Amino acid sequence: MTIEILEEARVFEGRQLRIKHVSASCHCDMVFSVFLPPQIEQQAVPVLWWLSGLTCNDQNFVTKAGAQRVAAELGIAVIAPDTSPRGEGVPDDSEGAWDFGLGAGFYVNATQAPFDQYYRMYEYIQQELPALVQNEFNLDLSRQGIFGHSMGGHGALTLALNNPQQYRSVSAFAPICAPSQCAWGQKALAAYLGDDRAAWQAHDAVALIESRGFDKPILVDQGLADSFLENQLKPELLHAACAKQSVSLTLNHRAGYDHSYYFISTFMEEHLRYHSAFLNR
Amino acid sequence: MTIEILEEARVFEGRQLRIKHVSASCHCDMVFSVFLPPQIEQQAVPVLWWLSGLTCNDQNFVTKAGAQRVAAELGIAVIAPDTSPRGEGVPDDSEGAWDFGLGAGFYVNATQAPFDQYYRMYEYIQQELPALVQNEFNLDLSRQGIFGHSMGGHGALTLALNNPQQYRSVSAFAPICAPSQCAWGQKALAAYLGDDRAAWQAHDAVALIESRGFDKPILVDQGLADSFLENQLKPELLHAACAKQSVSLTLNHRAGYDHSYYFISTFMEEHLRYHSAFLNR
Repeated sequence: MTIEILEEARVFEGRQLRIKHVSASCHCDMVFSVFLPPQIEQQAVPVLWWLSGLTCNDQNFVTKAGAQRVAAELGIAVIAPDTSPRGEGVPDDSEGAWDFGLGAGFYVNATQAPFDQYYRMYEYIQQELPALVQNEFNLDLSRQGIFGHSMGGHGALTLALNNPQQYRSVSAFAPICAPSQCAWGQKALAAYLGDDRAAWQAHDAVALIESRGFDKPILVDQGLADSFLENQLKPELLHAACAKQSVSLTLNHRAGYDHSYYFISTFMEEHLRYHSAFLNR
Repeated sequence: MTIEILEEARVFEGRQLRIKHVSASCHCDMVFSVFLPPQIEQQAVPVLWWLSGLTCNDQNFVTKAGAQRVAAELGIAVIAPDTSPRGEGVPDDSEGAWDFGLGAGFYVNATQAPFDQYYRMYEYIQQELPALVQNEFNLDLSRQGIFGHSMGGHGALTLALNNPQQYRSVSAFAPICAPSQCAWGQKALAAYLGDDRAAWQAHDAVALIESRGFDKPILVDQGLADSFLENQLKPELLHAACAKQSVSLTLNHRAGYDHSYYFISTFMEEHLRYHSAFLNR
């Protein structure tokens, strides 16, 4: 595995890198960003994965979320992957819609043509990237956490629910809680996984909690002025599933906040300190 | 004067607004952004003006600098204007260069055709915008500070030096210290103000300090990995002028930092607290 460093800048005494590599999972060049805190010069540091939402790439989080200040203080590496495969030959939405295809991988392994050759973001995040970054940087992958926003909040929840041994901590900002029950999710899961809804269950946080429970706490922040709250995000379904299965959920309803990075940046410090309590012990 | 609110979002319990209005100074529609801290609901708050650098508009600062957290704590409104007039009919660089014309107003009042009808950013920042925002929001304009980056650092310094009664405090990130002595500045000042260099002196921080001195302190942060440091920014000339005229200058050389918003965001909190000491007393 070889990497190419596309950009590097110092920020809060750490290193912000943008890295390109050939992805074996996605069969294309992929780009991700990583913040390395200053503590990495002395010791292996834990890793917190950030999964972004629809239309984003690896840059939205690193330029807008304001995470580096607190991650530098806490000694946590934060890695922001892209949200889908990209490049010539990678199939996109046939009508160019923004909620499917490029920028909308939904963190699944597609099984349906023409997407199945490229859209393998689940395997990419869960297996390929950890192996790659462990080879390159002084990271302690026995201490991983995961969080994300919107489609990436869905990704963080489902990756954590499916791999409780891998991720010590999980949180989300305005996640798509039940993709089987909203238009964004139904469109993506049908195209990537096929019409048999049984295959969707492994990528639906509410369905996973209802069928298996979860032995770790979950932290979610949701803005009440979020225009996607009612039709796409449905945190009330997550609340009900967690209550039914006795899963610990902190669901913060934030009055006045929308779906943007202004919302995310406001509560980023709380989420980072939450993860640190699991990653730095 | 009427304004149109293009966007509004809650961030750190304050309001981030993007506003469009017809500018009498610049003879075109202009857009600026303003962060209003939560304290404004109870009392008039001071104003800190942020002037951005080449190629920027009003959005770079508000999405990337991470200023809202500390401005909300300190109760300071932060206003980020655009960097030039824009729109059909506004003359641009004849060859489309990025360092002149649109996005590169240099905070002067142009006297030369075809720029003199539109490029009046000095008057716009110093007179028109304060009057407009005072009319709209609960601001205390007896307490104004100004800061900026690169070309906007030049703008902040020259506006403060020319209007010591208006701005209580001034600071800059990687400012163009002596535009008469660098390629960016020479190109812009010749085109906007003409070939007579006497007219340039009022818009050159080093020349202003050499001719008039300054009775307030100046804070400057400069990254040592900044690729523009040697040929365009020349902080050593600012240092020499301040030393000669006994002007108080804190010039922080930051090892490893470049010209980007990663650099700016790292030291934003220090600059905001510096301004607060003047604005909140």
